[in-house]
Amino acid sequence: MTDPRSLPEYDSQDECRWLKEGESFDDLQRGGLKIIQSSSVFKFGMDAVLLSDFAKASKDEKVLDLCSGNGIVPLLLATRDKGAHITGIELSRYSAEMAARSVAYNGLKDRITMICGDALKAKELLGGGLCDVITCNPPYMKGGHGLKNTDDAKTIARHEIKLTLEELVAQMAKLLRTKGRVYMVHRPFRLGELFVVMHEYGIELKRMRMVHPFADHEPNMVLLEGVRGAKSYLKVDPPLIVYDSPGNYTTEIMNIYGYSENP
Amino acid sequence: MTDPRSLPEYDSQDECRWLKEGESFDDLQRGGLKIIQSSSVFKFGMDAVLLSDFAKASKDEKVLDLCSGNGIVPLLLATRDKGAHITGIELSRYSAEMAARSVAYNGLKDRITMICGDALKAKELLGGGLCDVITCNPPYMKGGHGLKNTDDAKTIARHEIKLTLEELVAQMAKLLRTKGRVYMVHRPFRLGELFVVMHEYGIELKRMRMVHPFADHEPNMVLLEGVRGAKSYLKVDPPLIVYDSPGNYTTEIMNIYGYSENP
Repeated sequence: MTDPRSLPEYDSQDECRWLKEGESFDDLQRGGLKIIQSSSVFKFGMDAVLLSDFAKASKDEKVLDLCSGNGIVPLLLATRDKGAHITGIELSRYSAEMAARSVAYNGLKDRITMICGDALKAKELLGGGLCDVITCNPPYMKGGHGLKNTDDAKTIARHEIKLTLEELVAQMAKLLRTKGRVYMVHRPFRLGELFVVMHEYGIELKRMRMVHPFADHEPNMVLLEGVRGAKSYLKVDPPLIVYDSPGNYTTEIMNIYGYSENP
Repeated sequence: MTDPRSLPEYDSQDECRWLKEGESFDDLQRGGLKIIQSSSVFKFGMDAVLLSDFAKASKDEKVLDLCSGNGIVPLLLATRDKGAHITGIELSRYSAEMAARSVAYNGLKDRITMICGDALKAKELLGGGLCDVITCNPPYMKGGHGLKNTDDAKTIARHEIKLTLEELVAQMAKLLRTKGRVYMVHRPFRLGELFVVMHEYGIELKRMRMVHPFADHEPNMVLLEGVRGAKSYLKVDPPLIVYDSPGNYTTEIMNIYGYSENP
């Protein structure tokens, strides 16, 4: 009988040691970067990938990612050399632990720290220090009225059950240094609240990019950059179009996903 | 000698009776609609044409146009059958008088009333009544610092010398009935202020459309619909693209200008 370690399947066998039941690896098209995902919790979407691309953080900046889920944003930021160190905070213990395994698997423990906890207690969880940059892909939907299972991790990731936009922004304002930046992805229908609430907590939105499924469609996502203590002056980027034709990504999306590097 | 009224030149001779020195008629491509313009004051731009197209007003609604200039917005609204009656208010006596001549020339005196006065005193000028719809193509630039001639009509039309955005919105809030609508065109860089100030005065922005010179360019105008006393929920329209290629309008712009009706 052949030594199983010598089989071509060895790598995938090895990967299996990192996986629990129902989990799998997804290749992030970034020099071998892989993320552990599970169908039982929220899988990352295009939102997180676009947010990681939109966000800017220099190599000496301290980054905090709120509502980290399975760690997709910290993983993508780290492999794009954004930020000196990235801390991810995630409420679901299972998701946070899965994210920590992804960090370890990819050898990124010196760049990323995952914490299980409430984003609204981030200031305490971090010991009171200030951040240069915050990223956040928050729940999009208002309230949890009429929802059957408000304890379900997927529901919590989609709906404002454990936090509201205003509570989240209030916490961001406490965490950011003056002129520190926040990057968020959200739904365009919440834009009015985003501008107003950010302003009320001393953060001005300075850059915005709408994401449209097709060039002639309404946007279904908006990418935002806010700066704490800045004056109101918004730069609106050209629209980001996802599909050229049904099923065919635009060149820009292909580049953001890194597909052009791995044809 | 032939009777001059029988000459083919009669119409243009007749039009000349409506014009003062330095003025001319511009054809608005709407069933013969013409507007008097002068190079000495602010000529209307694409902003006003797009605003008139973006604005909605049913046939029984009372419309007020603030910062009317030469009356372009009231003229276009009236010929598109928007609003029962449109009142235009313009600070420059010369522009307001020129607008009134355009209204008379086009036989629209029963649909449009032009008033010379301060938009910030509109409530008094109108005798205290409420409007269903307000349209406004305001000055875009903040303040008048460093400007040489702050009394010049063109400068006043471009810069917030005689009014600020907040003063204007405060006046709109006084003029609009509950659930009444305001339509504005502005520069995207002012969007943060627009959302915040509108909200502070009880008007929520409910619809937004970005206008981009080219599909892959940043927007240079934004069209906005606000509703007094509404909840925050924004509908973002697909982008409005002006040019297909340099010098060539897109079909949508051609339709808005009415060129397709007059090839």
